[in-house]
Amino acid sequence: MLAATRVTTAARGWPGAAQGTAFRLGTPDTSLFPFEEWTRIVSRLWREPPPELLRYGDPAGYAPLREAIAAHAGVARAVRCTPEQVIVVSGSQQALDLAARVLLDPDDTVVMEDPGYLGARAALSAAGARIVPCAVDAEGLDVAQARNVAARAVYVTPSHQFPLGVTMGLPRRLALLEWAAERDAWVFEDDYDSEYRYAGRPHAALQGLDADGRVIYIGTFSKVLFPALRVGYLIVPAGLSDAFVAARAIADRHPPTVDQAALAEFIERGLLARHIRRMRGLYAERQALLLELARRQLGGLLDVAPCNTGMHVAGWLPEDADDVEASRRAAQFGVDAAPLSHYRIAPGSPGALLLGYSAVAPREMAEGVARLARALAQLPVRRG
Amino acid sequence: MLAATRVTTAARGWPGAAQGTAFRLGTPDTSLFPFEEWTRIVSRLWREPPPELLRYGDPAGYAPLREAIAAHAGVARAVRCTPEQVIVVSGSQQALDLAARVLLDPDDTVVMEDPGYLGARAALSAAGARIVPCAVDAEGLDVAQARNVAARAVYVTPSHQFPLGVTMGLPRRLALLEWAAERDAWVFEDDYDSEYRYAGRPHAALQGLDADGRVIYIGTFSKVLFPALRVGYLIVPAGLSDAFVAARAIADRHPPTVDQAALAEFIERGLLARHIRRMRGLYAERQALLLELARRQLGGLLDVAPCNTGMHVAGWLPEDADDVEASRRAAQFGVDAAPLSHYRIAPGSPGALLLGYSAVAPREMAEGVARLARALAQLPVRRG
Repeated sequence: MLAATRVTTAARGWPGAAQGTAFRLGTPDTSLFPFEEWTRIVSRLWREPPPELLRYGDPAGYAPLREAIAAHAGVARAVRCTPEQVIVVSGSQQALDLAARVLLDPDDTVVMEDPGYLGARAALSAAGARIVPCAVDAEGLDVAQARNVAARAVYVTPSHQFPLGVTMGLPRRLALLEWAAERDAWVFEDDYDSEYRYAGRPHAALQGLDADGRVIYIGTFSKVLFPALRVGYLIVPAGLSDAFVAARAIADRHPPTVDQAALAEFIERGLLARHIRRMRGLYAERQALLLELARRQLGGLLDVAPCNTGMHVAGWLPEDADDVEASRRAAQFGVDAAPLSHYRIAPGSPGALLLGYSAVAPREMAEGVARLARALAQLPVRRG
Repeated sequence: MLAATRVTTAARGWPGAAQGTAFRLGTPDTSLFPFEEWTRIVSRLWREPPPELLRYGDPAGYAPLREAIAAHAGVARAVRCTPEQVIVVSGSQQALDLAARVLLDPDDTVVMEDPGYLGARAALSAAGARIVPCAVDAEGLDVAQARNVAARAVYVTPSHQFPLGVTMGLPRRLALLEWAAERDAWVFEDDYDSEYRYAGRPHAALQGLDADGRVIYIGTFSKVLFPALRVGYLIVPAGLSDAFVAARAIADRHPPTVDQAALAEFIERGLLARHIRRMRGLYAERQALLLELARRQLGGLLDVAPCNTGMHVAGWLPEDADDVEASRRAAQFGVDAAPLSHYRIAPGSPGALLLGYSAVAPREMAEGVARLARALAQLPVRRG
């Protein structure tokens, strides 16, 4: 049973079984979500649904939502597209899976950030792609390192590199697009939590800088609203819309319609923008608190670095420490702190723990840092 | 761009752009759906959602829904499974796509009913399978014809063959399972509208007769509730659960959680069973009305055959008539009547029109039949 084995292998180690609250990765705080307003929108739609919301729908997504997403991505991310280029999907995972199905053939080479996002690696590997890891430096993916790779595509998280948190600067963005043009490669731009930027102006998405139609832009509402909603989007070059829509129809026909209609109204009424603003303020405060607590209690144990974007920070361990062991000990103290090694393609150092702060209230944060300090105090130094 | 072309080709002619109401295929009547009760369930869940309904969920589906589905399929379809074998998907399309991804390798041979379901053909072709068509007789797929095919899998719709409406009898079911055992082939059992049976006792699903763990059972709520909900399920042999769950996680991580929680409650409270009973009565009346109207107005033009199951009937054209031309003329008269040829893999005759009656109210039904009579009266006999 070759196929089943390939699938199981591709998914190994992902999705992780997250336990505990501090410091789980990729988890938005939902306590401030306007559930009252959302429920009013959803209830009105369900109580007397227009027939077109109940029938088979458009595989590309519900038209008003595609329009709302095109407008949102234009304003928030300098993405340039028509609504016809927007394909509503169930999240960044489906976006990646469709991109792999439409644009990759088995044994195609794909350059990936190392360390990088496991869900992307799983989708690309399942499609039969050969993954070539490429280092990440302070400017993001080290394009020079990829220079001689005959890649069909590259996967990047330029707004907030997952998991290191680096933002790709403009020169590096232009270098990446230039490299892609030379190689005739696709660029899979996963802009998964770009909405959370705490300092400085956001850089335009690669999609908005792309003159050649080689960027496949991937956005999701999993981080700005909540994961269980299962709504994300692809923005594809105009000439690829038909192929992506066909792939989506084959994969699972179309997204649930009422959820899409509700989200379209939520965006049109400005509730999404308001929620993002509110959460941005909250998350900035939470990161500041975590950094302050870490400075006071984790000195010498974990060097927690500030980050201008996203929902987590990296805490660097002393040079010889093993981050998998550190994570295991943290778990024994009831703390969820993912080890950076888990996201590395090639083995490497130094070790770090990734600390998600977005869903952690101040009291839990203090308790979490105190427990982490106790866990790490017992950490043996690795014997080389 | 080989991959994109393959996808677009696999999806050709499907999904169809359905226009008009009489006699669209596969469309449930939603006017009797208990939207008030559904809205109450959904609103209560959204107003104060427990945190676990908002986070990333189980790729296999929401546990209470898996339990409710296992119980429902056991009672309604004599399926034998534990909740761990149930994987919630977005409909039969995703079920098929996952089955193809997990169990088929490129160039594997799959036997399919001819005529058959286009969505299955698209998913299997996109996975690189070679489709071997096999005729359908009064007992369903003609297993004897498949005898010598070295197939890796077979796709069947035994409760209500799509599109002919034939129910596979018990001897044929056993012959199919025996053939699969000899060939070491998987059986993809698509039980898409098995809930609507108007006469006689339903046959047990192939899954319930299968002693070897070779049946992949596919069910959907698209027909008993409505398509836009996007909830269906796979019931897989216990040893395959992990591979299917991994494939689902790679494809799109997990299904939307609140919808699943609402549906679980809807089933547990008996509302699904009540709705099915009510619709079964309504659809039986509608089929009877359609047959009566056809008998009176379509004599010599279209021989509409009764069917014990499902949501549509086949109307057979005179021997030399071209069903694609007949369908085109019907469309000119505002009537949606899909030509049987559209679903044939190998070209064949006789021609027929498929008439969906489930969503057609009595007045529209009368109007539709009258229009169809006018359209078909002008139909030229094909010149051989």
